[in-house]
Amino acid sequence: MNSIRLSKLSNSLGTSGLEALALNAGPSLVYLTGLHFHLSERPVIALFTADHDPVIILPELELLKVKDVPYDIKAFFYSENPADWDGIFRRAIATLKLDGKRIGVEPRQMRLLEFRQIKSCVPKADFPDASDLVSSLRVRKEAAEISAIRKAVKAAQSALEATIPLIKVGMTETELASELVVQLLRHGSQSEMPFAPIISGGPNSANPHANPSDRKIRRGDMLVVDWGASVDGYVSDLTRTFAVGDVNYEYRKIHRIVLEANAAGREAGKPGAPCANVDIAARKVIGKAGYGKYFTHRTGHGIGMEGHEEPYMRGDNMQLLEPGMVYTVEPGIYLPDRNGVRIEDNMVITENGAECLSDLERGLLVVG
Amino acid sequence: MNSIRLSKLSNSLGTSGLEALALNAGPSLVYLTGLHFHLSERPVIALFTADHDPVIILPELELLKVKDVPYDIKAFFYSENPADWDGIFRRAIATLKLDGKRIGVEPRQMRLLEFRQIKSCVPKADFPDASDLVSSLRVRKEAAEISAIRKAVKAAQSALEATIPLIKVGMTETELASELVVQLLRHGSQSEMPFAPIISGGPNSANPHANPSDRKIRRGDMLVVDWGASVDGYVSDLTRTFAVGDVNYEYRKIHRIVLEANAAGREAGKPGAPCANVDIAARKVIGKAGYGKYFTHRTGHGIGMEGHEEPYMRGDNMQLLEPGMVYTVEPGIYLPDRNGVRIEDNMVITENGAECLSDLERGLLVVG
Repeated sequence: MNSIRLSKLSNSLGTSGLEALALNAGPSLVYLTGLHFHLSERPVIALFTADHDPVIILPELELLKVKDVPYDIKAFFYSENPADWDGIFRRAIATLKLDGKRIGVEPRQMRLLEFRQIKSCVPKADFPDASDLVSSLRVRKEAAEISAIRKAVKAAQSALEATIPLIKVGMTETELASELVVQLLRHGSQSEMPFAPIISGGPNSANPHANPSDRKIRRGDMLVVDWGASVDGYVSDLTRTFAVGDVNYEYRKIHRIVLEANAAGREAGKPGAPCANVDIAARKVIGKAGYGKYFTHRTGHGIGMEGHEEPYMRGDNMQLLEPGMVYTVEPGIYLPDRNGVRIEDNMVITENGAECLSDLERGLLVVG
Repeated sequence: MNSIRLSKLSNSLGTSGLEALALNAGPSLVYLTGLHFHLSERPVIALFTADHDPVIILPELELLKVKDVPYDIKAFFYSENPADWDGIFRRAIATLKLDGKRIGVEPRQMRLLEFRQIKSCVPKADFPDASDLVSSLRVRKEAAEISAIRKAVKAAQSALEATIPLIKVGMTETELASELVVQLLRHGSQSEMPFAPIISGGPNSANPHANPSDRKIRRGDMLVVDWGASVDGYVSDLTRTFAVGDVNYEYRKIHRIVLEANAAGREAGKPGAPCANVDIAARKVIGKAGYGKYFTHRTGHGIGMEGHEEPYMRGDNMQLLEPGMVYTVEPGIYLPDRNGVRIEDNMVITENGAECLSDLERGLLVVG
């Protein structure tokens, strides 16, 4: 699998005008090589070219990870003493003769720690943004990847179903978040999750990116639960919004509007349609209902090895949807200092349309 | 608390020869401002100077986070359309008149995504490495920080005690890792943990940075468990190594040697001693016993808001230990393709010596 991906990369480099791609630790490196490292104070750099075996420079204590990989790679390793690192990097990078060449990088992932090290070895090289090239390899998921995402959706859904009966008035958001993580693990998620669940009640739910707090869940709250699982290195990302006991009329109304926007967004995806259509369809419903200014974010984003990746469902994004693309549809309405609602599902583009991978009840459920 | 830290930063900038510090999302930003963002495709940049209020540029949907902070900060926000971002960044950064100046950065944290954005706004600025300046603020922990780390050690220890009876021959490493995470949550860890636990048995335990695999735990294995908890944003990081049933004589021997090295490393820390002493003391024990070449990593690293931070316990590090510094002591012996042992504790430097924060049994426990 990695050999095929590496050879696709070589072909893409050949036609891209880039002589190399430089990656640090992260999902693109895992995608191409299967090699997983944490971003730490020890730099890991891999260089890919069209004509040579990939080169990787890594700490000695990680060396076992490259021992049995099923493709050719030249590994250089360094000791624990940072004074030795520069020499190793120079020797490794020199083997590829890249000075003065164009070396693509991923600005979202590449840190100055690795970048400055590479640049000092090839001071006359250019480092254009190669995010689109890498994304073009990753964005159409293979069958095995979609199957992993399906499992991650199922794990997340079962975990939430097991958590709903545990939601009680008086519990804090963080307590509920912990319970949900326990259930995610019990239902098959890896412990390295795409993101820590967002549990936000009442005024906190009006903040789309709230961190769970010590605020207690109260009767009358809307309760936003945004959570996901990881299975085989692939993620799911879902949101449901609950009513804690009786909630006021307007909150029930915005829930209905968001539900309708979610359905419109889900229906707008198909091969050949621009990503913008998904956003426009969902936004239109909320705008028509008079809440347009309270829907402050894009309608969705791609998911895969990362919780956020291409393609992005924004009104200005004319990128065309293609079979195998997997993304979220997650419209919301956020009434500042009051309450918010978001409903999020995961979609995959098929040959003829789009399939929704998540089927957990979306209607307003009363909890607590 | 943040006001005090921000004013300490202003003083440090004044004497450092830097006109500003630029941070992206991450622990140093949390330390200085209390503001927590995920590293995502949406850049967040904060700029600190000696004479002006800090400036932060962030996505509109995160704006609520800066609404009620107990210090002055100028917030600029951008919409979901990346075409608008550059203008906002230019306007925000222009308010500080930093072109041609020296703007410190943290290469370990700063990505090209944020760095290129800043650089394009102030093309004549220099961007020296300010890691030491930021670390000098963070490295001596305040009482409240040490108290949080104590809680994180206690949570981790109770979680492992609850997990030990669950270890069974035939379980996979990932299954055991999940159980341990469940127990970490039950015992008070936040769900955003410092790292996913390492559970590595038999030959996998000879890889110091192994990821848990589907390998089943077998009789005769050494089983390395490297785990930590997060409490109030601060972490613990511990390791214990178990014997699964009867293990061969040499493995029991290397466990005894590592235990002795761990004690020597713990005893070597005191105010005014160089970090090197901790490494040298632990390494000497292992070297004398003839296993020096199988101890392939430094003896420890600082912990705090991050799982790895300054100070680093390396034989070449002459940085002096000071009261309030918190770090790990974690010698190991790794016999390639066979088995490994590591024993890790968490220390804090006191006025007169060093206190070990962890007290979980270190002797070789038989499990399974």
